[in-house]
Amino acid sequence: MTSTATDRAGAERTVRVAVLGCGNVGAALVGIIQERSEALAVQAGARFELAGIAVTDLSAPRPAHVPHDLLTTDAAALVADPTVDVVVELMGGLEPAGSLVRAALDSGRPVVTANKALLASDDGVALRTLARNRGVDLLYEAAVAGAIPLVRALRESLTGERIHRVMGIVNGTTNFILTKMTEQGADYAEVLIEAQALGLAERDPTADVEGHDAAAKAAILAGVAFGYDVAGDAVFCEGISSVTAEDVDFARRFGYVIKLLAIVERVGDDSLSVRVHPALVSEAHPLAGVRDAFNAVFIEGEAAGELMLYGQGAGGLPTASAVVGDLIDATRNLLAGTTAPAPDRQPARLLPADDLETGFCINLDVVDRPGVLAEVTAAFASHGVSIRSMEQEARSGADGTLGARLTFVTHRSREGDVRATLSELEGLESLQRIGGVMRIVGAS
Amino acid sequence: MTSTATDRAGAERTVRVAVLGCGNVGAALVGIIQERSEALAVQAGARFELAGIAVTDLSAPRPAHVPHDLLTTDAAALVADPTVDVVVELMGGLEPAGSLVRAALDSGRPVVTANKALLASDDGVALRTLARNRGVDLLYEAAVAGAIPLVRALRESLTGERIHRVMGIVNGTTNFILTKMTEQGADYAEVLIEAQALGLAERDPTADVEGHDAAAKAAILAGVAFGYDVAGDAVFCEGISSVTAEDVDFARRFGYVIKLLAIVERVGDDSLSVRVHPALVSEAHPLAGVRDAFNAVFIEGEAAGELMLYGQGAGGLPTASAVVGDLIDATRNLLAGTTAPAPDRQPARLLPADDLETGFCINLDVVDRPGVLAEVTAAFASHGVSIRSMEQEARSGADGTLGARLTFVTHRSREGDVRATLSELEGLESLQRIGGVMRIVGAS
Repeated sequence: MTSTATDRAGAERTVRVAVLGCGNVGAALVGIIQERSEALAVQAGARFELAGIAVTDLSAPRPAHVPHDLLTTDAAALVADPTVDVVVELMGGLEPAGSLVRAALDSGRPVVTANKALLASDDGVALRTLARNRGVDLLYEAAVAGAIPLVRALRESLTGERIHRVMGIVNGTTNFILTKMTEQGADYAEVLIEAQALGLAERDPTADVEGHDAAAKAAILAGVAFGYDVAGDAVFCEGISSVTAEDVDFARRFGYVIKLLAIVERVGDDSLSVRVHPALVSEAHPLAGVRDAFNAVFIEGEAAGELMLYGQGAGGLPTASAVVGDLIDATRNLLAGTTAPAPDRQPARLLPADDLETGFCINLDVVDRPGVLAEVTAAFASHGVSIRSMEQEARSGADGTLGARLTFVTHRSREGDVRATLSELEGLESLQRIGGVMRIVGAS
Repeated sequence: MTSTATDRAGAERTVRVAVLGCGNVGAALVGIIQERSEALAVQAGARFELAGIAVTDLSAPRPAHVPHDLLTTDAAALVADPTVDVVVELMGGLEPAGSLVRAALDSGRPVVTANKALLASDDGVALRTLARNRGVDLLYEAAVAGAIPLVRALRESLTGERIHRVMGIVNGTTNFILTKMTEQGADYAEVLIEAQALGLAERDPTADVEGHDAAAKAAILAGVAFGYDVAGDAVFCEGISSVTAEDVDFARRFGYVIKLLAIVERVGDDSLSVRVHPALVSEAHPLAGVRDAFNAVFIEGEAAGELMLYGQGAGGLPTASAVVGDLIDATRNLLAGTTAPAPDRQPARLLPADDLETGFCINLDVVDRPGVLAEVTAAFASHGVSIRSMEQEARSGADGTLGARLTFVTHRSREGDVRATLSELEGLESLQRIGGVMRIVGAS
């Protein structure tokens, strides 16, 4: 806290903020700090002053409101500046972000970050421990689900709650794609191109569509909601690139929509299942109505029951809004000489993917002759997979042969048993093709 | 903080909690404090110990887990007990709750309350001021939307955000009734009886169905989201008792559902519109999917964009869950010698109901003869109410006469102008009946 010292009766404190990174979020943050200066000072108890903005290229094009004289390419020197009170890290990626955050925490300065990759890495665990040991805030509301006040809700409002499961639509790109596939009957590839044209998907969309971005967020949720350290790369992860228009259509006929979910679930007393995969969600479930690039996180708690938080998961302004909330929090804590709660975490005992139990919906194309159904159901039975319902419809194959489409919905079954069933089915002569295999969650 | 003093390294502090009231919420709170003792101690930094439970009748039937030896009918003595660290007020109503809360705050003890009526009264304003002046917490997450972490989200996460509008489904009883009317085509009176049988509506349902409960919550939201003091009885309020099956059916045909909304909206720079009324909500709007007794609050912010928080708005356990979050918060603050942020509030300049601008949907039954439409539209025009669309359909009246049903959807119009239009229409000989008149909100 610099200079112009203060008392509550009106004099003015100043908190000098170093901003690392000036992309969409950084530029939006700078704009908010400039435009809402008075209102933020009332809330935070101190006036924010930009100490500097670290960038990689001084001459890159930027919005006019970003003050050129505050730009620097020397992020390390900015963090080392003893007049800086709070550091906001918006560079993304592991390095140099990790080292800069470490340096700031090491010197006792609070850090606000939106860097999900860093937080979900082993470095993230070390940084949280460092912050706790140094007694400074490391806040990251913006790292999961953008503007949605999720991290604080879990950390503070629901801190006394025994949470059973958290299921989130935490990647806007894939939700946009799945929404368009559902509402327009379009193909994955076609909608991906549209999303890229709209700037909603990267040129290389892998991190989004293969679920890696959602997996990092699932790892962070496991920490915030359950108090376990989970690394992003330990999260079971399937993306949406193999979801077909046929799968989507089929889901709709059975009263489901397909959503890419990040799921963190307590299993027994000491295990956690942390996973990302497309799932069939009942149309009556609140997550089913989350459209386009919106995010939502559905929380099931012992006393609170069902909760859902919905909002914009990305974008410069919404993400900057979450950063501002953390910045105010960090400043108040700094003034009060306290920190946000950061309870100890334990390493998680992760449930192996094969041990997960859920309902499945499985489509099989088979030849249409007597005895086939008996063969197929025997394969399910031999692995202990119990069938809840089955439908059969006639179909003509691509090669003109006639056959049947069988759709099975199972009771809750072990994933490993279902995989074993599918392997056995693949060996059947009467099987032409395994169509979609989807996990069912929620009100199924 | 009593006795068994502590340091962070493991020794144990005890926080003695006085619980005033032992209905559904009180009993659920006592259960959670007993069952989750260890986990709560980790989160709060101190172990909760029940100092006493104030009730009006010692011999009333209660769940077995409520310890009989802690019951007392002398609430004032319990609050005055110097060993009590925190007071939880769950009695409801203005008195004696108000005096007890005042006594607790006066003596420097934090208070957690779920009492919306008290908070929305003039006493509520005085109590918040007292808490601020005494530097103690007065927390009330449970007073609006039950388990939904709404108050903390607004107070802390969105504190830097310029909020434009908050629209909430904050009364579970009326949402249950409207959901059943929508999904079953049932009549209001019929569903009210069902809700009463299920314990979802009181024998005297006035406070719920006429919107008074929602109005108190709207007043609290005005304070938390916008920083203005608003009294519950100053809130414009219309309930759902005059909503008919015909209105619901009609809404559905036009792509809307009817919801009872509590709306707090910034109008211009210094006015606030605070109101409760049934409204047409587009089926594509996230609030439209909030079914049964669930609550949800939709927030529109300048940077954050659209947010929605959804969950259980009532019930013993969900409400107790919110109380526990506040209790942990109050305890942490007590240990840290700080308080939750409680910025100054100003009295609100409330927009007169007549000055509100919104879209309207108006049904008129008229005689079917040439020139009627011209007369009717002239009435709209003479009050400056601009028509967006009109539909006409033939109908036969109850008395066998033939006529037409006209449905007008207006552009945003002043409420006063629409009322004046309706008055003028009532004077027309060709008008048989004014059917539903509904305000349209959201994605209309």
